[in-house]
Amino acid sequence: MSSSNRICGVHPVFEALSSGKQPIERIHISRDASSGKIRGILDLARQLGVPVRREDRAVVDRLAPGDIHQGVVAIVGELRYRSFDELFKSEKPLIVVLDGVEDPRNLGAVIRTAEACGACGIVVPERHSAPLSPTVVKASAGASAYLPVARVVNIVNAMNSMKERGLWLVGVDPAAEKSWTAFDYRGPVALVLGGEHRGLRRLVRENCDVLVKLPMVGKIESLNISVAAAVVLYEVMRQRIGL
Amino acid sequence: MSSSNRICGVHPVFEALSSGKQPIERIHISRDASSGKIRGILDLARQLGVPVRREDRAVVDRLAPGDIHQGVVAIVGELRYRSFDELFKSEKPLIVVLDGVEDPRNLGAVIRTAEACGACGIVVPERHSAPLSPTVVKASAGASAYLPVARVVNIVNAMNSMKERGLWLVGVDPAAEKSWTAFDYRGPVALVLGGEHRGLRRLVRENCDVLVKLPMVGKIESLNISVAAAVVLYEVMRQRIGL
Repeated sequence: MSSSNRICGVHPVFEALSSGKQPIERIHISRDASSGKIRGILDLARQLGVPVRREDRAVVDRLAPGDIHQGVVAIVGELRYRSFDELFKSEKPLIVVLDGVEDPRNLGAVIRTAEACGACGIVVPERHSAPLSPTVVKASAGASAYLPVARVVNIVNAMNSMKERGLWLVGVDPAAEKSWTAFDYRGPVALVLGGEHRGLRRLVRENCDVLVKLPMVGKIESLNISVAAAVVLYEVMRQRIGL
Repeated sequence: MSSSNRICGVHPVFEALSSGKQPIERIHISRDASSGKIRGILDLARQLGVPVRREDRAVVDRLAPGDIHQGVVAIVGELRYRSFDELFKSEKPLIVVLDGVEDPRNLGAVIRTAEACGACGIVVPERHSAPLSPTVVKASAGASAYLPVARVVNIVNAMNSMKERGLWLVGVDPAAEKSWTAFDYRGPVALVLGGEHRGLRRLVRENCDVLVKLPMVGKIESLNISVAAAVVLYEVMRQRIGL
C-alpha cells in the first residue's frame, strides 16, 4: 500500500465509490462517524463488495495525517492517465489544455469545473505538471473519476493534432487583445492555459488560433489558474446553452 | 513574533511590501536566491526601511516549514479586519458576502478574484469563517492588502444594512431557477455565497433579493466556492464593461 493512495472525506469517498472508475481496495471509517452520508457509503460499499473497516479515530487519523478526513479514508488504486484519443468521443469536443499547472489543488479544481461544464477531457504535458495524486482527486471533489486526463510528451504536437481534428485552440493570455467573450465557443474547442508562474510559453501561444484575456481592473496582475479556466469554461457554457 | 505572521514566496512578499498596508517587520531572504524579482524586493525594502536578512536556506526553511517560500519569507503584523462602513466608499458598490467559507485558500482565492474585478470588499461572519491568516494572504496573491475584509456578528443584519444602502443582494444557490446571467449587475450589488459544505443557510437565502445558479451538465453536484464566486464576478465585469 503506497502512502499516496488515499481519498479522504465523506463526499470524495462517496463520489469515488459511486463512479466505479477507480479500484477501491478498502475503506476505513472511524467508529464515531455516523451520518446519512456515512450510511450511504456503507450501503454502496456493501453492494460493491468493497471491504469496510470500522476503527478508532486515532487509527483513521494515522492513515491520513494532516488531512481533513471526516472519519472516512478510502485506499484506492492509482488514478490512471487516459489515452489522448479517448478525449475525442464527443461530437462537440471541449478540451482543456494545462501547460504546466504544478499545484495539485489547481489541477483538481480545473478538473472539477471542467467536468461540471461538460468538457470531455484535460491534456497535460509529462513535464512540469502536477501528478494525478490523491490531492488532485480530493480537490476535484470526485470529478477526476469522470473526466479523463491525458498526458502527452509534447503539448505543441498535441495542439496540432487537435487542429487536425477540427478543434479551435483558444489560448488564455493576459496580453491578448480580445476579451474572453469575443469568441464563438459553440464549435469544437480547446482552451489552452499556462502554468501558475509563467503563463503561456511562446511556442504554445504561437500555436493557438486565437488569444483571449480576462480583464482585471484592480491592482493585482494575475488570476488563479483554476479561476481563469472556470471563467472561460462558463463562457463556453453560456454560449452553448444560449444565454 | 507569532508563528502565524509570515508571508512566503517572491510574488506575495513583493505585493505585500508594495501595497504598504501591512506593517512588515522584516524580510528573510535565502543567500542562494537571486532574480529580478528578488532585486525588486531588496530595492523596495531599502526604500521603505524594512530590514532584510540574508540567511542560509535552512534558516529560511525553518521559518516557513512546509511552505513553498522560494527563498523569501516576510514577517508581518497581523492583517486587520476593516469596518463594515469602509466597504461603501464606491459609487457603485460590488461586495462579496461569504457566509461560512472555512478554507483559507478559498477565502484568499475569492479575495484575489474580487480585487481583480473591482469589488470594494468582502463581508464574513465572526463564526465559521477562515481567519485572516498568512495562508489567506498567500492564496490572495497579495490582493488581501488592497481589498478590505469586514467581519460582522450577524450576516443577515449586514445584508439588511446593505439593502438600506441600496444594494441588491444576489444569492448564488444551485437550487435557483434563474441562471447567473439573468440579472442586471450594473447597479450596486452584493453577491452572497455560502460555505464549502452547506451552501446558503435558509435565513440568508430568504433575505436575498434574487437567487441565481450556475448550471452544471456533468456528474458532480457542486463547484468550488472560489470558482462559483469568480464566474459570477466575471459576469458582473462582463455587464459593467459592456461586453
